[in-house]
Amino acid sequence: MIIKEEGITSPKGFMAAGDHIGIKKFKKDLAIIYSEKPALCSAVFTTNAVKAAPLKLAIKVLSENNYIQAIAINSGNANACTGEQGYIDAVDCAKTLATSLNLNENQVLVSSTGVIGKLLDRDIILNGIKNVSKELSDSDESAQNCAEAIMTTDTFKKQITVEIDIKGKPVKISGIAKGSGMIHPNMATMLGFLTTDINITKEMLDKAFKSNIADSFNMITVDGETSTNDTCLILANGMAENILIDKEDENFNKFREAVEYVTKNLAKQIVTDGEGATKFLEVNIKGARLKEDARTLCKAILNSQLVKTAFFGKDANWGRILSAMGASGVKFNPDKVKISFKNEIGSIDLYENGMPYKFDEEFALQILEMREIKIDIILQEGTEEITGWGCDLSYEYVRINAEYRT
Amino acid sequence: MIIKEEGITSPKGFMAAGDHIGIKKFKKDLAIIYSEKPALCSAVFTTNAVKAAPLKLAIKVLSENNYIQAIAINSGNANACTGEQGYIDAVDCAKTLATSLNLNENQVLVSSTGVIGKLLDRDIILNGIKNVSKELSDSDESAQNCAEAIMTTDTFKKQITVEIDIKGKPVKISGIAKGSGMIHPNMATMLGFLTTDINITKEMLDKAFKSNIADSFNMITVDGETSTNDTCLILANGMAENILIDKEDENFNKFREAVEYVTKNLAKQIVTDGEGATKFLEVNIKGARLKEDARTLCKAILNSQLVKTAFFGKDANWGRILSAMGASGVKFNPDKVKISFKNEIGSIDLYENGMPYKFDEEFALQILEMREIKIDIILQEGTEEITGWGCDLSYEYVRINAEYRT
Repeated sequence: MIIKEEGITSPKGFMAAGDHIGIKKFKKDLAIIYSEKPALCSAVFTTNAVKAAPLKLAIKVLSENNYIQAIAINSGNANACTGEQGYIDAVDCAKTLATSLNLNENQVLVSSTGVIGKLLDRDIILNGIKNVSKELSDSDESAQNCAEAIMTTDTFKKQITVEIDIKGKPVKISGIAKGSGMIHPNMATMLGFLTTDINITKEMLDKAFKSNIADSFNMITVDGETSTNDTCLILANGMAENILIDKEDENFNKFREAVEYVTKNLAKQIVTDGEGATKFLEVNIKGARLKEDARTLCKAILNSQLVKTAFFGKDANWGRILSAMGASGVKFNPDKVKISFKNEIGSIDLYENGMPYKFDEEFALQILEMREIKIDIILQEGTEEITGWGCDLSYEYVRINAEYRT
Repeated sequence: MIIKEEGITSPKGFMAAGDHIGIKKFKKDLAIIYSEKPALCSAVFTTNAVKAAPLKLAIKVLSENNYIQAIAINSGNANACTGEQGYIDAVDCAKTLATSLNLNENQVLVSSTGVIGKLLDRDIILNGIKNVSKELSDSDESAQNCAEAIMTTDTFKKQITVEIDIKGKPVKISGIAKGSGMIHPNMATMLGFLTTDINITKEMLDKAFKSNIADSFNMITVDGETSTNDTCLILANGMAENILIDKEDENFNKFREAVEYVTKNLAKQIVTDGEGATKFLEVNIKGARLKEDARTLCKAILNSQLVKTAFFGKDANWGRILSAMGASGVKFNPDKVKISFKNEIGSIDLYENGMPYKFDEEFALQILEMREIKIDIILQEGTEEITGWGCDLSYEYVRINAEYRT
């Protein structure tokens, strides 16, 4: 697997565009992804009971047709909690996109992110889609514009491309994502779009893609919030012309691993750019009785306001970690838990056998001064394990979210 | 029911003390509550799987004996996650308290709050208990010292006394509490101690006390954290000499209502003093299908970081409220939800029939400028309702908790 410094137009047959159309004051706010040929689409959407209009439409479209050729994504307005008019707006956006690109309505999707509860300005969005459709190209500049246009409070573009070899044919998988706030497991409140030129069946594409979501995007959290707009999807247009992947063989595994790399990489980029984050936290739970226990404990730690503020304060407060675990509802014996921190500075054991270690506070501080910190938890209850990623809770998070709408 | 400006020694036969013994640098850190006569005790403890040593001991003592005469409460150290030595320390604290007051070991309880994972300094705590035992008195000054000594990051003492009349006999119920951080439903991470001179059976005391916890202390939240040390208990020594309450008659109802007033009042004081809080939020859920749905939705709103930061930012961001409800797991139809805010300034409708109202932002801001804001949610799914209380998330919360241990 080769990691490439390329954008979402890197796989064969994909074009992109991104520009400022006026939803936001100054920044780019409309992105389009386009495939020359109809591409198989596998998608997952938010578990939030309140689903934004474009998600309702996308779910409907994908229930009728697996092949998608274009997606328009606007930032600055989520088109969520906008009632019937919001749905009509989403439909009209899709119609405009289809017309602009000579496609059928059931070959396109729309996606939105931004403020909840505000109707889209129809003039701006419909004209915007028309105009940006004309800017589609396979240049890297277009890919960069596209990655930029889906950002909200993100401070950097999140993208990654990998290349694998399937029986002599190069196959590429690219992805872009936006995250920043409202990031929480199930399904890690975010937008993620992957493009690939692999030749694969729908069943195998679903298998490779959806199985990876649980351990990547669903294992990150910024603030424990699951949004109304979470969407993650992959388009596979087959233009790499590799031998068709239609079963779980070694070719499938190669592809699945590449997708895993892309989704985990994007997930970690999202957490690194968590709103106001000063720390990147990796929690490794080992020795859990059930996989589900491991997941719950991992998320409980990463979502604890007290744990997060402690890391912001560079405080080796393992007691808050144990307390968050205890409050999670998972049954475990606290006396068998082992807690340690580690990173490039070294590692430090904090708690074992029901007792705190008398650790070197000076050394602990050195570890906690670093941006990346790994928190290792061993439960001694079983053999299940999981890894999750999160960030600290800083003044900056409060500022960003106190000021976001106004 | 008469509300009194008196402390925990107000009911007949209760004494108290509070002083600085050296666990904290300067502030009072040891409180003792004492009843002249053995008092029936009803108690609830944290649901956190990680229980502090004094809770383990209290649960054991109360399983063997319903009558308690003294409780020593230290702040500054939670004696949680302290292994076998922590339990031995709690037992020795209880022994010292019993000896100092000529009681049996099974007539006393100990309670702790503060930093997790640090052993108590035995010299300081055991000598402290001995010395403060000598300071017990029924003066109001002692009551105030006692209320002060259980505080951690609290900025004011939380206490309340009410008086009721049971067939011509005055009966008093007093309470003190500490809260501030790690406050979350189930069981609203906190310490709460109530004293009453009522003459009542154990069964009726349990009924009056425990039934109130679910709708008072368990309906507040500061940061969604359930601590290792949550304890709430009531001591009833019978010294009011009222006719024995042994069934659910009008006398019982009078008492139950008085206890409800005390627990809700203390609960609201805790939230008002939530770490860094600038807003006091009351969420009223109406028209839920199940009581449990109403509870879950209420807590989901009050625990949402995005909702809390929006209130800190005086932003009428009802979309985050609806999103938090949607992410809670409760099934409801978002198109039937109505959301409005109100307080002494007036009321404003924000969302109904799946659509946002075009509300007056200027007027909304006037409402949000106030410290107290009521959030009314109508679901139109059924007839169940609940009220909960919480606060906003401010810079100050982050500062307090980033700096707490060090």
